[in-house]
Amino acid sequence: MNLILLQPADLDDTGRTLLSDHRARHLISVLKVKPGSEVRVGRLEGPLGTGTVEHGTDHTVQLACVFQADVPPRPRVDVLLALPRPKVMKRLWAQLAALGVDHLILTNAARVERNYFDTHVIDPAFYTPLLIEGLQQARDTRLPRVSIHRQFKPLMEDDLSLLSNPDETPLRLLADPGFRPDPVPTARGGRALLAIGPEGGWVPFERDLLTRHGFLPFSLGPRSLRTDTACIAALAVVHQTLLTDG
Amino acid sequence: MNLILLQPADLDDTGRTLLSDHRARHLISVLKVKPGSEVRVGRLEGPLGTGTVEHGTDHTVQLACVFQADVPPRPRVDVLLALPRPKVMKRLWAQLAALGVDHLILTNAARVERNYFDTHVIDPAFYTPLLIEGLQQARDTRLPRVSIHRQFKPLMEDDLSLLSNPDETPLRLLADPGFRPDPVPTARGGRALLAIGPEGGWVPFERDLLTRHGFLPFSLGPRSLRTDTACIAALAVVHQTLLTDG
Repeated sequence: MNLILLQPADLDDTGRTLLSDHRARHLISVLKVKPGSEVRVGRLEGPLGTGTVEHGTDHTVQLACVFQADVPPRPRVDVLLALPRPKVMKRLWAQLAALGVDHLILTNAARVERNYFDTHVIDPAFYTPLLIEGLQQARDTRLPRVSIHRQFKPLMEDDLSLLSNPDETPLRLLADPGFRPDPVPTARGGRALLAIGPEGGWVPFERDLLTRHGFLPFSLGPRSLRTDTACIAALAVVHQTLLTDG
Repeated sequence: MNLILLQPADLDDTGRTLLSDHRARHLISVLKVKPGSEVRVGRLEGPLGTGTVEHGTDHTVQLACVFQADVPPRPRVDVLLALPRPKVMKRLWAQLAALGVDHLILTNAARVERNYFDTHVIDPAFYTPLLIEGLQQARDTRLPRVSIHRQFKPLMEDDLSLLSNPDETPLRLLADPGFRPDPVPTARGGRALLAIGPEGGWVPFERDLLTRHGFLPFSLGPRSLRTDTACIAALAVVHQTLLTDG
C-alpha cells in the first residue's frame, strides 16, 4: 500500500480521519507510524496529499490531511476485454487498476461462457475494493469506470463510440497473437482503446467487426499467452507507446 | 496447453509416445482427440512437430510424432530478478517461461529477505513443471536456464558477464519507477538483459552498482506496480522493443 485512499465519508470538515480498518492495521503494523509521521494519502476521485499522524491506539490511527490543489488526470487507456473466467478476472482487477485503465469495458464473445456473467466477481461490491487496492499500489485516486456488455454486436455497432470521451478519439488497438508480428502502432493523439480477446481468441466474425470498427491489429510476438498475462503485457506495451509519444 | 511437450524418455526409437499422465487427460478431456487427430507436439530443448493419435483408452493416448528439422531459437531476453517472496515467485515461473526468458538470474538484494532462499519454490523439482507449463502455453520447447545467487556484489562484479552468451552482448536495462519517465532504450543488437528489483526497489548502493555495470534505467511510467505485475510488464515491453528492431 503506497497510498492510503480515503472516501468522502472518511473525512470530517477539518480534513481529519480516524481509521480503524485494514488501513489502520497497515499504518500500525507495516509502516509503524508514530505521532508526527507523515504518510501519502489521496481522496478517491480527488487529489493526492499528505496525512500527519495525530494520535493512535493499538487499533486506530487519526490523520490530519492536507490535499494538493490538482486532481491527477485519468489514465489514457480504455480496455475492451472479453470477460475471462472468474478465477482470472479476480486476479486482474487490482493489476488493471494499478497499470492504469480509464474505462474497463467487459464484453461477451463467442468464446466467453455465458455463466461467467452470473458470478459475484463482476459485482461492484466485490471488485471495487480490488480496484482500490490497485490504486493504492500505483498511487492513483481515479477509479476505473466499469461497464458490462452481454452482447458484443450492439456494443460494437452502437455503444462503443458513446463510451469514449468525445473530446479525444482513441487509437483503437487489437492485441492478437494470430496476426502478423507487427509491433504496436504508434498511439498518436495520446489515447488508446485496447481490445483483448477471450481464451482461444476472437472468432472471425468478431475479428471482422473489430477491424471494420477501426481496431488496428498488433502482435506481442509469436508466443501465445494466458489471458491474464496477455492482458498485463498488452496494457503495459500500450502505456509505453503513449509514454514514448507523449 | 497449446503444445504437448515431450521429454526424451517419453519417446521410443520410432517417434512414438504412450501418454498416461496429465497430458493424456488434456488430450482426452479438453481436446477430445480420436484416432487420426493431429496435435502440436515438441521435444524439450528440441524441435516442434506434429503428433498423430494412433489409439487411446479412457486414460492413455498413443501418439506417432514427426518433428521439424529446426530447433526453435532461445528467447533473446535474460532477466536478473531480485528474488520475490515465495507466493509471488510461485505465480511468476509459468508466466516468465511463457513470455520468453533465456536465462533467469535470481539474486539476493538488500530488500530481499534471506529466508526466501530456503523455500521449495526455488527448488528445480518444484519450478521445472511450472516452466514447462509456460512453454506449453507459448508453444516453445526451450527451457529457461535458472541460476540462483545469494550475493549481489560478486554476481555483479564477477559472475554476470560469464552468464551471458559471449557471442552477443546484451543491452543491459534497469526497470525502475523511481527514475525519470524515460521510455525503454532501443535494444540494438537484438538481445537484452533486464534487471527487476525487489518490492521496495534497489537500495542506492545496488542501483549504483547496476548503472556502473552498464544497466540503463528506464521507466514504465510513474505508477508503482506490484513485483509480479512489474515483472510481466517490463518483460513484455522489452520483448516489444526487440520485435520493433528485429
